[in-house]
Amino acid sequence: MELLTLPALHRMAICGGTHGNEMTGVYLVQEMARRQKEEGEKAWPLPIMLVLSNPQAIKQCRRYSETDLNRCFTSAILSTPTTDSSPYELRRAHELNALLGPKDSKEAVDILCDLHNTTSNMGVTLISYSLDEWISLHIYKYLKMKMTSVPVRLFMVNIPNNEAYSLESVGKNGFSLEVGPQPHGVLRADIYNYMKEALELAIEWISLFNSGAVIEGGEVEAHLFHKSIDYPRDPDSQQISAAIHPQLQDQDFCCLKPGDPMFQCFSGETMCYKEDECLYPFFVNECAYYEKGIAFHLARKTTLKIPSVKVQIEDRGTS
Amino acid sequence: MELLTLPALHRMAICGGTHGNEMTGVYLVQEMARRQKEEGEKAWPLPIMLVLSNPQAIKQCRRYSETDLNRCFTSAILSTPTTDSSPYELRRAHELNALLGPKDSKEAVDILCDLHNTTSNMGVTLISYSLDEWISLHIYKYLKMKMTSVPVRLFMVNIPNNEAYSLESVGKNGFSLEVGPQPHGVLRADIYNYMKEALELAIEWISLFNSGAVIEGGEVEAHLFHKSIDYPRDPDSQQISAAIHPQLQDQDFCCLKPGDPMFQCFSGETMCYKEDECLYPFFVNECAYYEKGIAFHLARKTTLKIPSVKVQIEDRGTS
Repeated sequence: MELLTLPALHRMAICGGTHGNEMTGVYLVQEMARRQKEEGEKAWPLPIMLVLSNPQAIKQCRRYSETDLNRCFTSAILSTPTTDSSPYELRRAHELNALLGPKDSKEAVDILCDLHNTTSNMGVTLISYSLDEWISLHIYKYLKMKMTSVPVRLFMVNIPNNEAYSLESVGKNGFSLEVGPQPHGVLRADIYNYMKEALELAIEWISLFNSGAVIEGGEVEAHLFHKSIDYPRDPDSQQISAAIHPQLQDQDFCCLKPGDPMFQCFSGETMCYKEDECLYPFFVNECAYYEKGIAFHLARKTTLKIPSVKVQIEDRGTS
Repeated sequence: MELLTLPALHRMAICGGTHGNEMTGVYLVQEMARRQKEEGEKAWPLPIMLVLSNPQAIKQCRRYSETDLNRCFTSAILSTPTTDSSPYELRRAHELNALLGPKDSKEAVDILCDLHNTTSNMGVTLISYSLDEWISLHIYKYLKMKMTSVPVRLFMVNIPNNEAYSLESVGKNGFSLEVGPQPHGVLRADIYNYMKEALELAIEWISLFNSGAVIEGGEVEAHLFHKSIDYPRDPDSQQISAAIHPQLQDQDFCCLKPGDPMFQCFSGETMCYKEDECLYPFFVNECAYYEKGIAFHLARKTTLKIPSVKVQIEDRGTS
């Protein structure tokens, strides 16, 4: 097995409330900030920046106030100057890029973890952009091994970092933690406990990596984005004319086979999956995706090989 | 068993979207309107007015736009004139009172059913205001007998009709159908099917009653409102400092005994129920009640006796 040396992860950022009604991240970041205030440097084995990403949306308990903040972090958007009349979230994206990035620069935080909730039954899902961002893949492997009370999966977007639109793409390494099912605007203790455990394990892995240990690679299961499916709609009004079928509801990451029911129309009929290939639905019936025209995403399942990793010995500038 | 004769129920109203992000009522009312347009008078055994109560909030997919519409139907509010600068929902409450009432008048619809969703695990819950509103109690008894795939319960508010603040209080008889759990802004097929079945059974009972049949009374189980419990809060910021405990979450209408866990604090401790009396929690972790300072309601369980009923023979005005 190949052994890669990678730079140490000195600076971590944990962000909550990028979507203001996804409550777990908001309350977890606040609780961590309280602990950091109390315990100071001893709270964690490395410095952690704790950020509430979208204060205005958090106050309103809405996903966003003017535009979806978590679609504002492409290199193109971040390199276009904003004005006082730009939407609040565009201006906030530039602020966050200055604070945590700039994206694709030496100054960016070493690792950024952005906390999200979904109404879909997705357990703990890591979202990563790049097939060779080994740090996030190793953290995923670690969580999958250590967390036994909830399924842990990886959704691999696989697009170039300059096109990546989410906050985590601002860090040198980064991933989203998507935990559900939880209604937006609601805080469930089970979901809070899962996210807290996942974060603590991520910090534990980073600390292990920084300590100089050789961390074994291996194979990990991943779900690669394939395409999105919209709800059936009335041709005149464009309103949805069906709900996710009860046999598909809550079955995120379970195989969808040709002939399986997908939608239950309000008029009574069932609409079935007609493609030849078995695919894996996820973000099934996510609240925020109604307005985006997405009933669920479909993924292909694959296995990724990741190398063993070890921290680079640093030139500490002594001479 | 006593036999009461009661006036026939000629005019029914079914309302959805009183809270604009409670999706089942919105889509069910729209589907019923589509069917009524197609089939005309034959669609149902009695005329049904189908109403989307809060079009502005439905469009925004929010509970309300300026104030909670379903707190605007007290006699005091409805008798106070509105102006152009009154909140949208106050003006809309007056419109709905003119359309479906006026409240406490001869012109009011005979029975009003208002459709709601909750994020709480409440199955099918009928909400009624009055211990002697026999029509709603009979419909509850009928649903409880006929629906086998989901628990059916009654939440009895028991306040005078002039103080009743909800839309259903505008009808001569009326109840809310509260179906969950469902995240607000999401439509689940299982919840849609439960609400559809409950409505069809209510219409079936009304039709049976109108036909002149003697409908047997008996005893029904009810949950009487006792009091509301707020989340523990930080004394300085007033922010919540705990989530509903995992052992209480989703346990609506299950007995809460002295010593049972109620809250899981973010700092780790458990807060337990300390009163002497066993009570029944419901609306546990309802999304919309965070802003009202309600973590859950507590009820006493009781048994209500309801008389047998029969429709009054009407003077048809022939001489």
